[in-house]
Amino acid sequence: MIKKGVTYDTAHLEGFVSEKDMGDIFAEVKKAHAFLEKRNGPGNAFLGWMDLPENITGSLVEEMETTAADLRSNSDAIIIIGIGGSYLGARSIIEAFSPGAVGKKIFFAGHNLSGDRLNALLDALRDRDVSVNVISKSGTTIEPAVAFRVVEDFLLKKYGPIGAKERIVCTTDGEKGALREIAREKGYKSFKIPADVGGRFSVLTPVGLFPAACAGINIVDLIAGAKDQRELLLHCNLGRNMSYKYAAVRNILYRKGKRIEILSSFDDRLHYIDEWWKQLFGESEGKGGHSIFPASCDFSTDLHSMGQLIQQGERNLFETFIVVEKKEERCSIPRREKDVDGLNYLAGKQVDYINRKAYEATAEAHFEGGVPNSTVLLAERSVYCLGQLLYFFEKAAAVSGYISGINPFDQPGVESYKQKMFKRLGKPAIG
Amino acid sequence: MIKKGVTYDTAHLEGFVSEKDMGDIFAEVKKAHAFLEKRNGPGNAFLGWMDLPENITGSLVEEMETTAADLRSNSDAIIIIGIGGSYLGARSIIEAFSPGAVGKKIFFAGHNLSGDRLNALLDALRDRDVSVNVISKSGTTIEPAVAFRVVEDFLLKKYGPIGAKERIVCTTDGEKGALREIAREKGYKSFKIPADVGGRFSVLTPVGLFPAACAGINIVDLIAGAKDQRELLLHCNLGRNMSYKYAAVRNILYRKGKRIEILSSFDDRLHYIDEWWKQLFGESEGKGGHSIFPASCDFSTDLHSMGQLIQQGERNLFETFIVVEKKEERCSIPRREKDVDGLNYLAGKQVDYINRKAYEATAEAHFEGGVPNSTVLLAERSVYCLGQLLYFFEKAAAVSGYISGINPFDQPGVESYKQKMFKRLGKPAIG
Repeated sequence: MIKKGVTYDTAHLEGFVSEKDMGDIFAEVKKAHAFLEKRNGPGNAFLGWMDLPENITGSLVEEMETTAADLRSNSDAIIIIGIGGSYLGARSIIEAFSPGAVGKKIFFAGHNLSGDRLNALLDALRDRDVSVNVISKSGTTIEPAVAFRVVEDFLLKKYGPIGAKERIVCTTDGEKGALREIAREKGYKSFKIPADVGGRFSVLTPVGLFPAACAGINIVDLIAGAKDQRELLLHCNLGRNMSYKYAAVRNILYRKGKRIEILSSFDDRLHYIDEWWKQLFGESEGKGGHSIFPASCDFSTDLHSMGQLIQQGERNLFETFIVVEKKEERCSIPRREKDVDGLNYLAGKQVDYINRKAYEATAEAHFEGGVPNSTVLLAERSVYCLGQLLYFFEKAAAVSGYISGINPFDQPGVESYKQKMFKRLGKPAIG
Repeated sequence: MIKKGVTYDTAHLEGFVSEKDMGDIFAEVKKAHAFLEKRNGPGNAFLGWMDLPENITGSLVEEMETTAADLRSNSDAIIIIGIGGSYLGARSIIEAFSPGAVGKKIFFAGHNLSGDRLNALLDALRDRDVSVNVISKSGTTIEPAVAFRVVEDFLLKKYGPIGAKERIVCTTDGEKGALREIAREKGYKSFKIPADVGGRFSVLTPVGLFPAACAGINIVDLIAGAKDQRELLLHCNLGRNMSYKYAAVRNILYRKGKRIEILSSFDDRLHYIDEWWKQLFGESEGKGGHSIFPASCDFSTDLHSMGQLIQQGERNLFETFIVVEKKEERCSIPRREKDVDGLNYLAGKQVDYINRKAYEATAEAHFEGGVPNSTVLLAERSVYCLGQLLYFFEKAAAVSGYISGINPFDQPGVESYKQKMFKRLGKPAIG
């Protein structure tokens, strides 16, 4: 019996998504399902993500854990270099479970082009022991490649070539590309990104798993969650396959004029899950003049900034909430002798209890205001449940993309600005 | 001669916004201008923000600086409690100029309902000297009121009533409300929020200024920038008043079907400016079924997540970039002996030089892809220029709201979820 780490509540879609709508779209869902099952749809060279949780070997997991333990024992700071799909998955997991580690033991770099920030980071780490995990399929993406040059230089000066070698781990293509070549030439430890897994679907490869292990997170549980969720999503049944149901819902709403989806969680430690989700859906679906614009909020924080517009602005929105069911009962509200702020009726109550009521009230108020919404419920804030959630969204992105009639696995538009940038930088022509 | 800290580049609006469009909308801009000048438009009880940079007294500035210096000298951690307009302005300024301070010396609380987070914060501060600035106009907004109860309790236990008194500063209404009453009763130091300034327009009151001073930021420069920008925006002339031009542009684009504005800066230290901007525009304009949905990106980071959709998704977007003109030349790219990653053509170049080229390429590529965009250029990343920027956006939000025919200074929709939450929490009826 598989534990349900993720459930999907659609009560606040009533009047926006009907049984008939679900029935009408089912043929498209079935087609999407067949594309995935038979591996004969557009982009089928990039379906490796589907079976990652099944296929990952115990020896690879052990190698990641051992290497991470080595880095943790010889370093008090680990820099993770990567951008996009080589950044957001790792950061999601680490921020969700080790929020205090970021900026103290784990540092992200190569995800922007700020020389000042990079310089400040290395200044701050000058007297500490530092390791680095550089993540790039090609090794030539400019942000991580530039950051790696700078950080490698820093390590070489600090430790010399032999010392630095013990502190550099490359995660890259198994065969080709600049970073693979560098790893080979210099003898750096390396992990392999499978050729059939695109960046935004790579969180369950060493791209996401190794940084998580470096932060001390139990990646075995993460993989177990993804594996169980995979089992739960094997069949094409909108009553039981909640990932497919979510994919169907968002396409039905899009066809009814809802152009913007706001993913909001009621726990800001999940903030980077939203960012990862934005890339997953935005990059998979945003092409050919079609897109559901993926936005995100942290609630209740952003109820005090975006709440007005969501309640009463243009009715082109729908919302998806992420809510953790099991409350963390660690902080109760003190009684005030004189009840000036009028909160004594809550004295002794847990802050997380109020948070739950804020969610319920928000979902109802926005629904009544004309914003259809549904909720992805995590049974608890555990690594296992996060593993389920990641796979849930990955499969939904694939199915949702196919329903909207596009190839969910390419990203033809990302080259435009790069070519213009290279021209401006005077990059020499190849060959 | 006033220094232009902010300029506005509209080159990539060609073909989307014509001279005729600007001429056609000018009557509405003039009407908005008259509403502000004569103080006779909707919401005119809340125009205090317009003259804040002029009206702030030297003695108030000195009092904020002295009090901040006192807190800094007796504390190594200052907790800022606030949400929405009592949070985002302060955080914008502090993250832009003291990014390293947040999580080390400055801590934010009361901006969510996470008991675990609040508990973890106090655990981490148990052995440190702590002060608090609680910011709330009413004192009854649930997130900051709950956090203040918990933090006040912590300080009372740690320092006793006399010691705690030296460590608590309240920023609240001058006359009424729960927090004013608490400050009076207990003799806490307090600063006043002017009655005619709404939360989202309050960054240039002690709401934003005092926390900035606590982080060691020069608030005199910030006010000077706002004051100079105010001067630059006194006249209704679309050729010279760039704030009005920006307000006109976004309404023209909205009327042509552009429903989403993405504010993107090429420096992630400005991230919270985007968040502040989202509230400013979203809450001012998102009502009566009308809204330009305010989204944000950090570039180049998010070019690797949202870039595909922006380049090729539904053409219902426009973009506004924030770019700092003066480069920070602190980090140059090392030469690699063997040019495996092909970056030696950039050796010796500054990372910030590449960042500038990334901006230019992005603006051009997105424009060619059908996304009109314009750029707000900051002369340099200085507190003075930020002061100009904040005022620039505030006046634009007011004018833009009036152009779209609504009251930019109310927020009637924010009560819906609160009422439902209070009911669920069993809040006793008043009286």
